[in-house]
Amino acid sequence: MKVVIDAFGGDNAPLEIIEGAIMALKKNDELEVVFCGDEEKIKNIIAGRETSRIEIIHAPDVILNEEHPTEAIRHKKESSLVKAFDALKEREDIIGLVSAGSTGAVLAGAIMKIGRIKGISRPALAPILPTKKDNDVIIIDSGANIDCKPINLLHFALMGSAYYSIIYNRENPRVALLNNGSEEGKGNELTKETFPLLKNAPINFIGNREGGDFMSGDVDVMVSDGFAGNALLKGTEGAVKAVVTILKGSIKKGFWSKIGYLFMRRVFKEIKNRVDVQGKHAGSPLLGCKKLVVKNHGCCKRLNICASIEQTLLLHKKQLNKQIEKALDNLNLTSISIGEGKSE
Amino acid sequence: MKVVIDAFGGDNAPLEIIEGAIMALKKNDELEVVFCGDEEKIKNIIAGRETSRIEIIHAPDVILNEEHPTEAIRHKKESSLVKAFDALKEREDIIGLVSAGSTGAVLAGAIMKIGRIKGISRPALAPILPTKKDNDVIIIDSGANIDCKPINLLHFALMGSAYYSIIYNRENPRVALLNNGSEEGKGNELTKETFPLLKNAPINFIGNREGGDFMSGDVDVMVSDGFAGNALLKGTEGAVKAVVTILKGSIKKGFWSKIGYLFMRRVFKEIKNRVDVQGKHAGSPLLGCKKLVVKNHGCCKRLNICASIEQTLLLHKKQLNKQIEKALDNLNLTSISIGEGKSE
Repeated sequence: MKVVIDAFGGDNAPLEIIEGAIMALKKNDELEVVFCGDEEKIKNIIAGRETSRIEIIHAPDVILNEEHPTEAIRHKKESSLVKAFDALKEREDIIGLVSAGSTGAVLAGAIMKIGRIKGISRPALAPILPTKKDNDVIIIDSGANIDCKPINLLHFALMGSAYYSIIYNRENPRVALLNNGSEEGKGNELTKETFPLLKNAPINFIGNREGGDFMSGDVDVMVSDGFAGNALLKGTEGAVKAVVTILKGSIKKGFWSKIGYLFMRRVFKEIKNRVDVQGKHAGSPLLGCKKLVVKNHGCCKRLNICASIEQTLLLHKKQLNKQIEKALDNLNLTSISIGEGKSE
Repeated sequence: MKVVIDAFGGDNAPLEIIEGAIMALKKNDELEVVFCGDEEKIKNIIAGRETSRIEIIHAPDVILNEEHPTEAIRHKKESSLVKAFDALKEREDIIGLVSAGSTGAVLAGAIMKIGRIKGISRPALAPILPTKKDNDVIIIDSGANIDCKPINLLHFALMGSAYYSIIYNRENPRVALLNNGSEEGKGNELTKETFPLLKNAPINFIGNREGGDFMSGDVDVMVSDGFAGNALLKGTEGAVKAVVTILKGSIKKGFWSKIGYLFMRRVFKEIKNRVDVQGKHAGSPLLGCKKLVVKNHGCCKRLNICASIEQTLLLHKKQLNKQIEKALDNLNLTSISIGEGKSE
């Protein structure tokens, strides 16, 4: 199974991206990777390694974060990301794409080059976060769709539920609607209209939940428009970092606390692994796209790339898109007028 | 200066509410308080204390969280909250009201009984949170106004700036617009239309900021509609609590980490005080209301009530509402059509 890698997307590209892919190759015998990027630079990094399952597509150009996404996809034909999308689109042997490049460009490329699953109004991003219990939580949409309609949120719920089921091998994950109160009837115009759609959808809908329930462990799939979802996701990440910064600052201030820290190093390491919102997690697939496209944090490291590639294999094997199509079939859409949200 | 207290609003009422007010009386010679609530119960709690600056208005009824806010304000005329609003409205000697009761009922009461400052489209709540630096941050609106128009966000920015200036004695606080990216041009329909209004307003507008910047210490006043603001606020509070829970769980697991904890107790206490989103902070005034109305967390304790009463004194002395009116005067509203957001 071949996965195409945008080797030059992300803050730590190309080294961390390529090392992550090599890590995944070692762990998965059935995996082959196709790197897109400057051929010479890639060859330098993989020199001396086992390369029988590595292919390179030369792409001398790179799309930068500050570039206009659709313009970049249209005009930077020699960029590592566009070459990767072209390969994903044209070649049947390639099952998915992994990139840590510009979010906007990955979204634009996926929609322009690959297209949506029939019936899905807007593809969405669903990153994974830890909770204070043992389970993880995903938020969908985390920023791909800024102005949304109820039908978009309904699709996010179906896709998020199918995705969570596969990656955690768990039937009927608990799906909640992000709201400003947990009572039925609460909300803005969007969530009030969305609530009955989710109630009647073939998912385990547990009702409205507030931002404070996000990391509680009592929700598996949090459904939101991309604007509020982005605020919640980024706010959560920022709060975790702030607490860690304040903790470190306090430890440095005192002699006894420094001594105590020595005894507790293991705990802090464990904490770091648990609450690190990036950690070892895979990136987020663009759910609703015809082929698998996984977007990583720009600052991701090799562990994340490796996890994203392995996730691509898993989602392919478990036929994520078939599951999404099945959920759509189960849904009686006759009474719902399909509106289009506005994408990034 | 008299402040009227809803002695029976909140999870820890009446004891913590009354003790908080007595604490404030001890610290502030010029303060007098008017308790609204069951007279006998109040008298039992204050028995044996110095009561020359305490007045009681008997109110045998209580508004519960699950009641419909406007209905409750209309019909529960003998409740502690309605009696408090009536006193605030009718008596010139009372400068403000403090309540830890139902948020919806406090909002409804403030709008129905007291009314808005002329020119302010919607009053808003602006709670205080700690940051990883030394300064605090406020978010406005945190949930009073769920569906907003650009004009509402403009007013939130003016009011938030005036409020922050007074409570932290700081000129030109840094005002940011909560958005899904920091670049100009980013955003949903609401924030895109709001950006130029804030740019031209008489405030220190530093541009768009993401949820991740909320606790960074680089923003003083975060402006948002109440839906996304609520998601950010609650998400942040939830994340802080989740990190603390995970930390405690890890410490309990190991012998050495328990030893380390003994050395670090002071640090953990300090952390708790710093990141506790409730902590010693005052509640949030309902900015834009004709008289001062301060809403506390339902679970607040005496320290919060004391802080809220002292904040009421400060905001009265520094003439918060005059400052807001001045900011409105400075604003050229001729070209802006005033739209009304939808309140909770």
